Amino acid sequence: MTTPENAAPACTPAPATRGLPAGRMPELRVMPAPSDANVYGDVFGGWIMAQVDIAGSLPATRRANGRVATIAVNSFVFKNPVFVGDLLSFYAEITKVGNTSITVYVEVYAERNRLQANTVKVTEATLTYVATGDDRKPRKVPALDELIFPQER
Amino acid sequence: MTTPENAAPACTPAPATRGLPAGRMPELRVMPAPSDANVYGDVFGGWIMAQVDIAGSLPATRRANGRVATIAVNSFVFKNPVFVGDLLSFYAEITKVGNTSITVYVEVYAERNRLQANTVKVTEATLTYVATGDDRKPRKVPALDELIFPQER
Amino acid sequence: MTTPENAAPACTPAPATRGLPAGRMPELRVMPAPSDANVYGDVFGGWIMAQVDIAGSLPATRRANGRVATIAVNSFVFKNPVFVGDLLSFYAEITKVGNTSITVYVEVYAERNRLQANTVKVTEATLTYVATGDDRKPRKVPALDELIFPQER
Amino acid sequence: MTTPENAAPACTPAPATRGLPAGRMPELRVMPAPSDANVYGDVFGGWIMAQVDIAGSLPATRRANGRVATIAVNSFVFKNPVFVGDLLSFYAEITKVGNTSITVYVEVYAERNRLQANTVKVTEATLTYVATGDDRKPRKVPALDELIFPQER
Amino acid sequence: MTTPENAAPACTPAPATRGLPAGRMPELRVMPAPSDANVYGDVFGGWIMAQVDIAGSLPATRRANGRVATIAVNSFVFKNPVFVGDLLSFYAEITKVGNTSITVYVEVYAERNRLQANTVKVTEATLTYVATGDDRKPRKVPALDELIFPQER
Amino acid sequence: MTTPENAAPACTPAPATRGLPAGRMPELRVMPAPSDANVYGDVFGGWIMAQVDIAGSLPATRRANGRVATIAVNSFVFKNPVFVGDLLSFYAEITKVGNTSITVYVEVYAERNRLQANTVKVTEATLTYVATGDDRKPRKVPALDELIFPQER
Repeated sequence: MTTPENAAPACTPAPATRGLPAGRMPELRVMPAPSDANVYGDVFGGWIMAQVDIAGSLPATRRANGRVATIAVNSFVFKNPVFVGDLLSFYAEITKVGNTSITVYVEVYAERNRLQANTVKVTEATLTYVATGDDRKPRKVPALDELIFPQER
Repeated sequence: MTTPENAAPACTPAPATRGLPAGRMPELRVMPAPSDANVYGDVFGGWIMAQVDIAGSLPATRRANGRVATIAVNSFVFKNPVFVGDLLSFYAEITKVGNTSITVYVEVYAERNRLQANTVKVTEATLTYVATGDDRKPRKVPALDELIFPQER
Repeated sequence: MTTPENAAPACTPAPATRGLPAGRMPELRVMPAPSDANVYGDVFGGWIMAQVDIAGSLPATRRANGRVATIAVNSFVFKNPVFVGDLLSFYAEITKVGNTSITVYVEVYAERNRLQANTVKVTEATLTYVATGDDRKPRKVPALDELIFPQER
Repeated sequence: MTTPENAAPACTPAPATRGLPAGRMPELRVMPAPSDANVYGDVFGGWIMAQVDIAGSLPATRRANGRVATIAVNSFVFKNPVFVGDLLSFYAEITKVGNTSITVYVEVYAERNRLQANTVKVTEATLTYVATGDDRKPRKVPALDELIFPQER
Repeated sequence: MTTPENAAPACTPAPATRGLPAGRMPELRVMPAPSDANVYGDVFGGWIMAQVDIAGSLPATRRANGRVATIAVNSFVFKNPVFVGDLLSFYAEITKVGNTSITVYVEVYAERNRLQANTVKVTEATLTYVATGDDRKPRKVPALDELIFPQER
Repeated sequence: MTTPENAAPACTPAPATRGLPAGRMPELRVMPAPSDANVYGDVFGGWIMAQVDIAGSLPATRRANGRVATIAVNSFVFKNPVFVGDLLSFYAEITKVGNTSITVYVEVYAERNRLQANTVKVTEATLTYVATGDDRKPRKVPALDELIFPQER
């Protein structure tokens, strides 16, 4: 019999990742630098927005099989502050694919202080990207069966 | 007799600012650097988000008479691309004041290529900030008549 | 009768801009980041110089109707220190146009601490730019009536 | 019956991660910016070194239960070039724990161009860190059973 | 017998430094990064100004035996353009010591393209610094015989 | 008669450079910025690695008479910490030339606090570069007598 515990070993998050979504690969995993924060050590909201934008663009780029441009931030909530010293993991998943647009939901988790299994969700956002051609004009998102790598992450 | 040329100096936007909101002071006015763009010269959406966050925080800080933290981006629309070489003006105005929160509407205009009276609106966003104390906890936004400088810009 | 043109009051600087030159549009308006300052919060003189150079190049570029290169700083005076948290406005005006060169006077004002109508002039400078062609060689500054947008800001 | 296909969803790397070590969490996962590369789009070796140093410091910090400082790079091999547009994953594991020192092996993988399941190992390195106290002097690495979170990742 | 002249060979500039001032130590020697230049590879005048400011502050700091602040740029001439790929050497010498102020002359040389003994002077500047105390107020420059290291470089 | 004062100008290191290798030109000489350090003022090991990589690439580029790429760090020892405020000198010399590769030994010295003749060696490293062509493939290092500038620095 295969219990989840047995099946898991390769994937069960180790203690330090307790609190992170199990079995998912973060799109980005970065540590903000002191220069990304104010003198009190609070990381700028704008820096987080910029990283979320990159993180969300990654599955959109794969799904669009090419360049995308951000056209809208539908929602963006800062649930907890981010500090210098936090290790941040950005998870992104596509929630909707339109004719030329792709909507992505991004979650950000902070492991406080690199030392502790104290992991909190700090940000949630939904952004919409549009697939673009070399002329920067919108282009059709390819059908799933037109993708060379048909299963997106 | 007052000719337009004579009347203008104090306030009428000069030709190069045609297309910018008349009689308003931008909160920020900046030129993105080549390092804020990809190799095609398109300025990163995330960089613009970060600047919008700062621009919106300025009237919020004045109204709160102290520190504020971003808690939400309610909407954010990229209407036109931004290129290296554009000169960007960020206008912000408070649209709502709650008990501890302040909502700000930010508009961004690009003067293309520094040379031309070709000015386009590139971004519109609405963000919510919360007034915070030294303990990073929300605090009450002071009443208008408690402000030392009662009229906000 | 008050025509929109007469309705200039919209242009009168609001309280927070008291201390700034009335009715003029700053070329740049920026907040230095903590990484632009030393550990005491004093913004580097060199960072200010770099911003002044950009600010001065803007009216020179418009007047030259194309690229310019800095050839000299004629004078540059730091009248007051600049701190992290100041909001800086850079005003520039052309003082002399030669055959291939354009001289610009730049003034920088700091609004202390974003909160206060405590605005001080921090820097004054005069720089000379030369109009350049694609070959980086000096080229003639066009006559005013050759400019597509004849009135410069 | 649980087939591998059924068991997989939570953990099997999705196609886009083919080529990455299965079931391991990267310490860092980042995209180099254009400003981290030369004009040909080759990412600077020094930038990669700096990221490897951070990646290796993370398990060392957890194992040391506090600050560490880099004391040596024992080996560092660039096996393939890194380009702007690559998505880089940094994996790190502790290979040796001394009295005050911790040696970490770091591997870096590049997913080319964000689109392709074309993943190559680009760098391998071994670095040694020393646990330090607030006085910057070496301190003893705690025994495993003294750690609050005894299993390190 | 070893005469001072014979002792010198260790100091004779090697071919690659032909064109640099003989026997002097540059205060700074740096390579501008691609992000310090525009898309044509011309390094920003403002970046050069910022480096000149640092270079000039070094002998001023040693002579003042403590902190200094820039108060004026007396002259600054860009004699030749600087390109990405140039290796820049900044030489500085004190030309005048006042009661609280120190004037420094800075010269900048570029070795083109790292490969060639093609060295040109690109910039000359004169800056004035003021010795400051912890209160940011001017303080007296110590007499030469009050310096612990009486000979300045 | 030649007094030490007269003999000195050309070559003898001035007091402030006591502790630096006599008669050698540093490849780089830079001051780390506050943003290159953590909040305690310790400069990041990764930043130092990146500078060492550039410093070592300079004599390799001259010897290869063209582009080089880093292929390995053979050893890298941090002997002393580096602090914000230190002035760093990077010395590099070629220790071995292979068919397509060039090995360079780099030493880094810190002048503490810009004020003191307190100079310490902070880092030693050996790196290997490979000469590359425009196709990024290794190419033969030219014989010494094929170099236009036959004596390398």
